[in-house]
Amino acid sequence: MIFHRTPGPFDVSYRITHCGVCYADVLWSRNMLGHTKYPVVPGHEVVGIVTAVGAEVSRFKVGDRVGNGAFVNSCRHCEFCEKRMENNCTEGCVLTYDAIDHDGSITRGGFSTHMLVHERYCVKIPDALLPELAGPLLCAGIVVYSPMVRHGMNKTGKSIGIIGLGGSGHLAVKFAKSFGATVTVLSTSPSKKDEALGVLGAHRFIVTSNKEEMEIAAKSLDYIIDTASGDHTLDPYLALLKTGGMLLLIGAPRELKFSPANLFLGMKSIVGSVGGGTKEMEEMLDYCANHGIAPIIELIPIQYINEALNRLSNNDVRYRFVVDIEGSLHME
Amino acid sequence: MIFHRTPGPFDVSYRITHCGVCYADVLWSRNMLGHTKYPVVPGHEVVGIVTAVGAEVSRFKVGDRVGNGAFVNSCRHCEFCEKRMENNCTEGCVLTYDAIDHDGSITRGGFSTHMLVHERYCVKIPDALLPELAGPLLCAGIVVYSPMVRHGMNKTGKSIGIIGLGGSGHLAVKFAKSFGATVTVLSTSPSKKDEALGVLGAHRFIVTSNKEEMEIAAKSLDYIIDTASGDHTLDPYLALLKTGGMLLLIGAPRELKFSPANLFLGMKSIVGSVGGGTKEMEEMLDYCANHGIAPIIELIPIQYINEALNRLSNNDVRYRFVVDIEGSLHME
Repeated sequence: MIFHRTPGPFDVSYRITHCGVCYADVLWSRNMLGHTKYPVVPGHEVVGIVTAVGAEVSRFKVGDRVGNGAFVNSCRHCEFCEKRMENNCTEGCVLTYDAIDHDGSITRGGFSTHMLVHERYCVKIPDALLPELAGPLLCAGIVVYSPMVRHGMNKTGKSIGIIGLGGSGHLAVKFAKSFGATVTVLSTSPSKKDEALGVLGAHRFIVTSNKEEMEIAAKSLDYIIDTASGDHTLDPYLALLKTGGMLLLIGAPRELKFSPANLFLGMKSIVGSVGGGTKEMEEMLDYCANHGIAPIIELIPIQYINEALNRLSNNDVRYRFVVDIEGSLHME
Repeated sequence: MIFHRTPGPFDVSYRITHCGVCYADVLWSRNMLGHTKYPVVPGHEVVGIVTAVGAEVSRFKVGDRVGNGAFVNSCRHCEFCEKRMENNCTEGCVLTYDAIDHDGSITRGGFSTHMLVHERYCVKIPDALLPELAGPLLCAGIVVYSPMVRHGMNKTGKSIGIIGLGGSGHLAVKFAKSFGATVTVLSTSPSKKDEALGVLGAHRFIVTSNKEEMEIAAKSLDYIIDTASGDHTLDPYLALLKTGGMLLLIGAPRELKFSPANLFLGMKSIVGSVGGGTKEMEEMLDYCANHGIAPIIELIPIQYINEALNRLSNNDVRYRFVVDIEGSLHME
C-alpha cells in the first residue's frame, strides 16, 4: 500500500468499499475552479473497513466500518475544532482531496483503494446502514442535516420548502418529513412532480414559473432550503416565507441577487452553511440508522465514472451516484 | 381642528411640537415610489402634547408628551399585533401618512399641527428626553434598536461594524457603544473619520476602498449593520464577519448581490428588519432616557423643509433634520 503520507500513531487505515460522487468531483476533476493540482484523486463520501490502526488509536479497531466526508484534518485547537465542528476550523480544514495537508503532502480522495486518516476525522458507520447508502450522507446529507438541526427545522410542525431535487435536496425532503414538517418541493420543471410527491412523499409540489401557484403559496413557509446551483434571483422565494422565515443557502451559484425590501419586510433572513463537523456527522448517521433514512442512489462501477460525471453535470442522476469501489476497482 | 377622520373613543389628539425628517419623506413627497396620493402630508417621527382623549382612552391624558413612528393602525388581532409588534402585522400595518386607513380615510403625517391616533399606536415620551431629540428615535432609532436587541447585539463584548453614518447609522453607533460593543465604522469616504472617532466615539474607522485596511479587518466582526441605501455588493463586508457572523440590512437599495460562497463558508447570515413595534419603541425610549442616548440633529423651521429634503437626498445632514413645528408652523 502506498499512502500519500507515512502512517502515524493516531492514523486509521481503511480499505475503501464505496464512495459517493459529489458535484465537487466534477469541479475538481475538470479544474473548473482553476486550482486543481493534477494528478487529482476525487471522492469525499468515502466508506470502508479498517485494515490497520496506529498505536495510539482508541476510537476504532480493525474491521470497523468507517467513513470520511469533505475534510480529513484541521487545526484541532480552535473553538470550532474543540466542539468537533471542524468544518468551521478557523485556520481552515484540510479537504479530503487535492488539499495540502499539514505535512505538505497532497490529500487523495475516495476513488481509490485505501484511505489513511487521523482517527478524529473518521466517523463510525452504524451497522444498520448499508455502506453504499452511508457514503452520500457524509457530504450530501450533512450539508442539509447540520443547518436543519442548528436552525430548528427539527421542531415538529414546521413548513419547509426545498428548491432542487439533487443529492442534497432529496435528502432534505427525507429529513424534513422525518422531523414532522410539511414539505413543499419547489421546482423549475413539472417533470419531477410524480417523483417528489409519490416517491419522496412531499406534501406539495410547486412549479416556480407558475405565478398562480406561487401566489397561493405566499407567506406559507417557515424555511426554504435552496440547493439550486445555477444563478437565480431569490425574490420569488423570499415571498413564500412567513414573517421571520429563513432561506437556507446550500447550493453554490456564482452570484445571487435580491431586493432588500423582500428581506426586511417580514424580518426574513438568508443563512449560509457548508457541511458539518464529525460530531454532527455521527449524530446524523445514528439518526438515519434509527429512522430508516437513506439516499436513493445509482450504484456504478468505477469504470463508469467519466460518464457519471458527465451526467451529473447535466443534473441527470437519481439522486446520487455511488461508486462500488470494492466491486469494481479491484477488477482490473 | 380638522382631522383626516372623526375622533373615536379610543383616540388620542395631540398638538405636534416636533417631527423628524426621514428619507421616506423624500421618496413620498417626490413620488419616487410611484404611488403617492397627493396632497400628501409627510413626517413619521412625530412628537407632541396631548390635547384631548376619547372616552375610553386609558393610557394617556391631556398634557402627556406622546409620539408616533411609521405606523398608526394595524389589524390588532394577529400574532404580531398581540405582541405589540404591529410593524409586522400580518395584514400590513397602516403607515403614518399617505396610507388608506381602515375607515377609508387617507392618513396624514407630522408636518402639520395635530395628530389623531388610536391610543395603542401612541408611545409615551419619557420626561428625560428632549422632545426634539425623541422624534428621530421613533423611526431612525427603532429600525436599528429593535433588530440589535432581537439578535443579541446588546450582549456585552460584541464587535459591531456599521456601514453608513446617516440618521440610523449614527444612532447604531451610539446604541452599540452603550451595549458595550467594540464599534467599527465602515465608510466609503475618509471625510467622516474624525467625526466617527472623535464625536461618536467609534473605536475603529475603515475606508472600505482601502484594501489593506479591509484585509486587516477580515473576520473581526460579530455583526455588521448595513444602513447604506445605494446598490452595493455585500461580498467585501461578508469577509469582515467572523464565523457565524450576521449582516443586518436596514438600508433599502434597489438590489443587492453577493457570492453565496462568502455566506456559507463560515455559516454567515444576512438578516432584514424594518422598524419595531410599540412595545419595543417604549423600551427603547426608556433605554435612551436612562442611558443618555439621543440623536445629533439639525433643528429647522418648517419653512426650510424643501431645502432640507434636497440636502437629505444628497446625504448632507448631520445627522437628522428635525422640524421645530411649534416654533415655526404657527408663525404663518
